[in-house]
Amino acid sequence: MPLHKAVLTLSCPNQPGIVARVSTYLFEQGCNILEAHQFDDTETGRFFMRILFNAVDPATALEPIRDGFTATADAYAMRWTMRDCDEQRRVMLLVSKFDHCLADLLYRWRIGEIPMKIIAIVSNHPRATYGEQDFADIPFHHLPVTRDNKAEQEAKLLRLVEETGTELVVLARYMQVLSNALSAKLSGRCINIHHSFLPGFKGAKPYHQAHARGVKLIGATAHYVTADLDEGPIIEQDVERISHHDSADDLVRKGRDIERRVLARAIAWHLQDRVILNDHKTVVFRD
Amino acid sequence: MPLHKAVLTLSCPNQPGIVARVSTYLFEQGCNILEAHQFDDTETGRFFMRILFNAVDPATALEPIRDGFTATADAYAMRWTMRDCDEQRRVMLLVSKFDHCLADLLYRWRIGEIPMKIIAIVSNHPRATYGEQDFADIPFHHLPVTRDNKAEQEAKLLRLVEETGTELVVLARYMQVLSNALSAKLSGRCINIHHSFLPGFKGAKPYHQAHARGVKLIGATAHYVTADLDEGPIIEQDVERISHHDSADDLVRKGRDIERRVLARAIAWHLQDRVILNDHKTVVFRD
Amino acid sequence: MPLHKAVLTLSCPNQPGIVARVSTYLFEQGCNILEAHQFDDTETGRFFMRILFNAVDPATALEPIRDGFTATADAYAMRWTMRDCDEQRRVMLLVSKFDHCLADLLYRWRIGEIPMKIIAIVSNHPRATYGEQDFADIPFHHLPVTRDNKAEQEAKLLRLVEETGTELVVLARYMQVLSNALSAKLSGRCINIHHSFLPGFKGAKPYHQAHARGVKLIGATAHYVTADLDEGPIIEQDVERISHHDSADDLVRKGRDIERRVLARAIAWHLQDRVILNDHKTVVFRD
Amino acid sequence: MPLHKAVLTLSCPNQPGIVARVSTYLFEQGCNILEAHQFDDTETGRFFMRILFNAVDPATALEPIRDGFTATADAYAMRWTMRDCDEQRRVMLLVSKFDHCLADLLYRWRIGEIPMKIIAIVSNHPRATYGEQDFADIPFHHLPVTRDNKAEQEAKLLRLVEETGTELVVLARYMQVLSNALSAKLSGRCINIHHSFLPGFKGAKPYHQAHARGVKLIGATAHYVTADLDEGPIIEQDVERISHHDSADDLVRKGRDIERRVLARAIAWHLQDRVILNDHKTVVFRD
Repeated sequence: MPLHKAVLTLSCPNQPGIVARVSTYLFEQGCNILEAHQFDDTETGRFFMRILFNAVDPATALEPIRDGFTATADAYAMRWTMRDCDEQRRVMLLVSKFDHCLADLLYRWRIGEIPMKIIAIVSNHPRATYGEQDFADIPFHHLPVTRDNKAEQEAKLLRLVEETGTELVVLARYMQVLSNALSAKLSGRCINIHHSFLPGFKGAKPYHQAHARGVKLIGATAHYVTADLDEGPIIEQDVERISHHDSADDLVRKGRDIERRVLARAIAWHLQDRVILNDHKTVVFRD
Repeated sequence: MPLHKAVLTLSCPNQPGIVARVSTYLFEQGCNILEAHQFDDTETGRFFMRILFNAVDPATALEPIRDGFTATADAYAMRWTMRDCDEQRRVMLLVSKFDHCLADLLYRWRIGEIPMKIIAIVSNHPRATYGEQDFADIPFHHLPVTRDNKAEQEAKLLRLVEETGTELVVLARYMQVLSNALSAKLSGRCINIHHSFLPGFKGAKPYHQAHARGVKLIGATAHYVTADLDEGPIIEQDVERISHHDSADDLVRKGRDIERRVLARAIAWHLQDRVILNDHKTVVFRD
Repeated sequence: MPLHKAVLTLSCPNQPGIVARVSTYLFEQGCNILEAHQFDDTETGRFFMRILFNAVDPATALEPIRDGFTATADAYAMRWTMRDCDEQRRVMLLVSKFDHCLADLLYRWRIGEIPMKIIAIVSNHPRATYGEQDFADIPFHHLPVTRDNKAEQEAKLLRLVEETGTELVVLARYMQVLSNALSAKLSGRCINIHHSFLPGFKGAKPYHQAHARGVKLIGATAHYVTADLDEGPIIEQDVERISHHDSADDLVRKGRDIERRVLARAIAWHLQDRVILNDHKTVVFRD
Repeated sequence: MPLHKAVLTLSCPNQPGIVARVSTYLFEQGCNILEAHQFDDTETGRFFMRILFNAVDPATALEPIRDGFTATADAYAMRWTMRDCDEQRRVMLLVSKFDHCLADLLYRWRIGEIPMKIIAIVSNHPRATYGEQDFADIPFHHLPVTRDNKAEQEAKLLRLVEETGTELVVLARYMQVLSNALSAKLSGRCINIHHSFLPGFKGAKPYHQAHARGVKLIGATAHYVTADLDEGPIIEQDVERISHHDSADDLVRKGRDIERRVLARAIAWHLQDRVILNDHKTVVFRD
């Protein structure tokens, strides 16, 4: 397949000459840099880079460029990815009763705002819960979770992830806490939307906690899931102003708007390889 | 003194007829309502109101209106205040090394944006720390605090508050934790600016905590001081977006702007009787 | 029908005693004020008020209260409304090719966030344009507009408004400019979402204008439609930060999120009688 | 002088290999890239870059690196600058009656937040206007402007700019419109703060215009001054929410906070070489 656009991300211990080496390599392969971001974490001594590039000759293939980059990558001990931007990633959406994030993601996907292959929608509630939503050809899986069958259902879920080649799992207001074991297995490829401005109001019913505390702004947080609940690397956050007039229910309503846009941004950036893990934090090369 | 403008605030158990009774009383006294806010807390059953009014006859005095209101206030078990807006409140500013909030408040006071009588500036650092700042005629008190003399210095501070008739104490980045005893004595008349978006990052060095956690927004919180550290009723909060590029020092710098405006708003609203305590929360009738 | 909650809005020339008169009247009718806002426009001398109330005796009917209020309303030359909050207003949605606002409003309507009766969806594009959207039982009308048939189609539209008893027409990214005549007829009951931060970038292709000018924030504006294009009374506005990286297409994408929430807020507030016209401006008693 | 940190900015017609060439050159000179931003304007075909770098050997001098870069710069027809970050730029502040931006900039300068050499403060009002402000050793020039002496005073101003080697002129709420001739001469090195969210409310008294129009947000705009009034390239903008309660005076008050932070950001970014002109727009590589 001829190369339209590709994106390279990398992180490695910092040292002089990385940019020169990488950009020279791409130039020698006949590539043109369209967009580049870099970040030098002076605290950890780690260097991060994202390069969007295309090929001067449109008949160029990506594979040899990727293969050829291995030598450079090894020389600098890089963690890296190089992907064709036209290849859509395989995404699984998990949802519970509240479907505002699901409806929002489906809409953005439909109009092409977030290009991806949604390979499954999974819920602990039955399909009828989302009666008015058109799931097109996306397979729906009902995996009801009880205290007793949780391990079993998680095993099914993981099997589904593996069989479908899922590259990203999105917890779109999925209200079941994943086990440590599953969280570990999905590390770096599972994004959750938490309905509070973390680290405030961890745990259950954050809007009710926020109402009880009397804060003047509420927020939402999209983060990678880790075994440590609500402590995963944060990708994006946003807030809205509230007042004493707002009941806990008003916060839930206002929060829906924040959750939708925060989760949508996080997913879009992840799929565009704009998010790179930096230990328990993230580097986000925003658009 | 003839009445220019006055403000009535009240809170009481809710029941039908409060607005009718209060507004009829003011009308009978020849007063005109300029601005009114009310809030009915359905959770606690408590009613809150703020009325700004003037007198149709400019020669009207406030005192008889205030005296006459007692009967109504008692009938509804109100906590209430009625103040002449032209009477400036007596304010004491406490500061430590970082003087950006102090400089900001002095500027707003000078140009008449926040009308008040600043009766003292108190610091645990010497006057020379603020060499370039013009304190006009405001008395400066140096009360250095050590582990050993803390109780003694707090006693001095409290004496100063009492002798000067201080009505509001502002902790304008005053970095000493007040004792429970002093906090209790200043309850409802001491405002602190905390340099985080509470309840996130309580305690020391919140910007460094925020940097370590990798949040994407930082904030500041103005709250009434209570014995329970960083748990006092919140008056105002605001945030700014940050990124992975920001070091802890960058957060400190960006935070200064947030702290200044959040504290200034909280003080202005308090002095305009726009803030009413609702147990451990606040009702803020914003301008 | 027994009275659950009702809302009274009024505006009239300001004079002392209005609040006392109105609140006393409601008290005498056995009503309890749940929420009240007022605004005294000192420039025009006009007074605005919104009161949400219920009845102490749940068997109370609204009609006699409304009838009885006429005397007071006449005495103060009020423009006023008094509505039962349980009666849903009849709303018509107009849309063109871009359906993000339509999809968003339908979702909010479905989950009960914006209670209303959507009596018709009208478009100058055919039903198939919105293939994936579930319109439930809402009638769809295709009124294609050409230069030649515009007057005729507007006549049909107006007839539809009248026949259906439409109380609010929403231009949810309806890209046809209404004629002066139609705008006049829908005055005060037609809300448009303009995809710019008015008064900047009036007219066509505002995101392209914004891109060309190099602004650093883009916005959207919900306003009542008047004959004077893009000059109608503004109900709500919001903005998002952009950068030099954003192409005009990126602005279109980012703008969708702003448009959706600004239009949804404006409609919700209008339907809750929170918006009162003040000549060519609005008084918005926000929630 | 040994090289601590330096910053290179450049813009040129885009073509493959620029990043490789520039980064390789710096690497060969023993330099380490600390921060890099680039932007490829696909509409104009122009490429923009900013690189912050230091030298591996701290004894390295900047001059030979700068001299050596000329060949590369010429080869790509670059407009470019390369500056030592420790060399503070020479800045002149112009002010009229309202001194909130001046006070704010002086404070930020004093605490080292905005490193610069303020070589003069110029006003059309006398020194006593700013009685409480400590100007330290900064020379103050009183250049009162009348209809008759405007050309003459502008000539004096320009002479002052030249004699002092002023590199940046800041119109910190300087309320005199510069002539086209002077604007042209200061092109690219004169920043103004306009007290509206441009392009809305150009010209005089923008807050009063905003109040009259009934907008729901107000803003401020920092831009380079050009002969075309209020049409210069925009560097930074910000907004705050307002309501019908706000009088024009309230907008003026709320606007002061926006103006201060918008102007401060624009100046800081300009002095850090983060702002590059792109015809009548700007590329801003934000911190």
